[in-house]
Amino acid sequence: MGEEVKLFGFYLSPFSRRVELALKLKGVPFEYIEEDLANKSALLVQYNPVHKKIPVLLHGGRPVIESLIILEYIDETWDGNHAILPKDPFERALARFWVKFIDDKVLGALWMSFWSDGEMQKNFMEQLKEYLQLLENELKGKKFFGGDTIGIVDIAANFITLWAIVLQEVAEISLINEENHPILCNWIEEFLSSEVVKESLPEKEKLFAYFHANKEIIFATKAPAY
Amino acid sequence: MGEEVKLFGFYLSPFSRRVELALKLKGVPFEYIEEDLANKSALLVQYNPVHKKIPVLLHGGRPVIESLIILEYIDETWDGNHAILPKDPFERALARFWVKFIDDKVLGALWMSFWSDGEMQKNFMEQLKEYLQLLENELKGKKFFGGDTIGIVDIAANFITLWAIVLQEVAEISLINEENHPILCNWIEEFLSSEVVKESLPEKEKLFAYFHANKEIIFATKAPAY
Repeated sequence: MGEEVKLFGFYLSPFSRRVELALKLKGVPFEYIEEDLANKSALLVQYNPVHKKIPVLLHGGRPVIESLIILEYIDETWDGNHAILPKDPFERALARFWVKFIDDKVLGALWMSFWSDGEMQKNFMEQLKEYLQLLENELKGKKFFGGDTIGIVDIAANFITLWAIVLQEVAEISLINEENHPILCNWIEEFLSSEVVKESLPEKEKLFAYFHANKEIIFATKAPAY
Repeated sequence: MGEEVKLFGFYLSPFSRRVELALKLKGVPFEYIEEDLANKSALLVQYNPVHKKIPVLLHGGRPVIESLIILEYIDETWDGNHAILPKDPFERALARFWVKFIDDKVLGALWMSFWSDGEMQKNFMEQLKEYLQLLENELKGKKFFGGDTIGIVDIAANFITLWAIVLQEVAEISLINEENHPILCNWIEEFLSSEVVKESLPEKEKLFAYFHANKEIIFATKAPAY
């Protein structure tokens, strides 16, 4: 597959960072194109006319859309030395289950635990507690969700390892901590100590500055810029 | 793969019907177990402790959960003579894109167009119009979303072919019709004329009776029993 690979992303987005990490794990060279989400490029709209969102992976001129779908595409297209999904169908289904759980349940509960208040916040925090416990159990006895190496669940959970930690500092709330989530915290440390992961995450200071500067507007809209 | 296959489902659920259709397309023999969703079995809770929902596919004693994940599992586990996903990675990504679009966008807009009123209903109907047009375009020149045969997008869209049509009659609203969606209507006809599909759908009269009898409670909760 000698065809050109381009990634349309946004510096602070955990979703385009997922794709970036997967490409780097596979050793696929690519050109990164930063999108201005307040003023989306004509190319982005052309390649993703339905959602007009990043990330878009362009491979040989053809667009692949939706971060999790892109991760599967990357795994199916480039063998590399790093498997993103397990080979066994049952293990694949399990990985997909946790990925969907993270996207459908954990991300929303985490986000809203930071950006709501009162009874609503209390409810989201209770949900989140339960979800984090499930992840804690799932990680028991393993280095990564993917086993000995970073897999699709780890990549999908990148939000927890940096964005959530930064939000804890911005909001001065401790939701994920050593005391309640020793296994999850150990996983975060392992994940962040990988060189490829380090190259695929935004700088912590920039993320902090973004959330801090946009506190009010994010609280009002419940949505980040990405 | 001579191991026992069981499907925990609910007669009226489009989600367990997806799995049923996929198993039948593949020619996989299975035992069907109807769940009483008001009084879930201990087995269902044991096999799907996180969501406690149908469908659950049990294969050789191991549970696979979430209808779309089960469809991919079935395709990866049993070759059969019927491919549920395309073989080419780009075509697979495209199919997954439309499946996600149907689940994340179309189903919600369809459902809420029937079960809301006033300004809210108007907004959902406008969204739906746009979504149906996208599906109409995607089907252009094809018999099924999957091409000449029923694929994962067709299976995921089973809701449109029967549940939506029944809801139109219950609510006396015409959202999908020959005039505005000739291609989609032709696809519905093709889909429903397949013998395997017919065996994998609830009886129209029973579905009508369920929605009709539960009109008020569904309107209030915005959720069906399944």
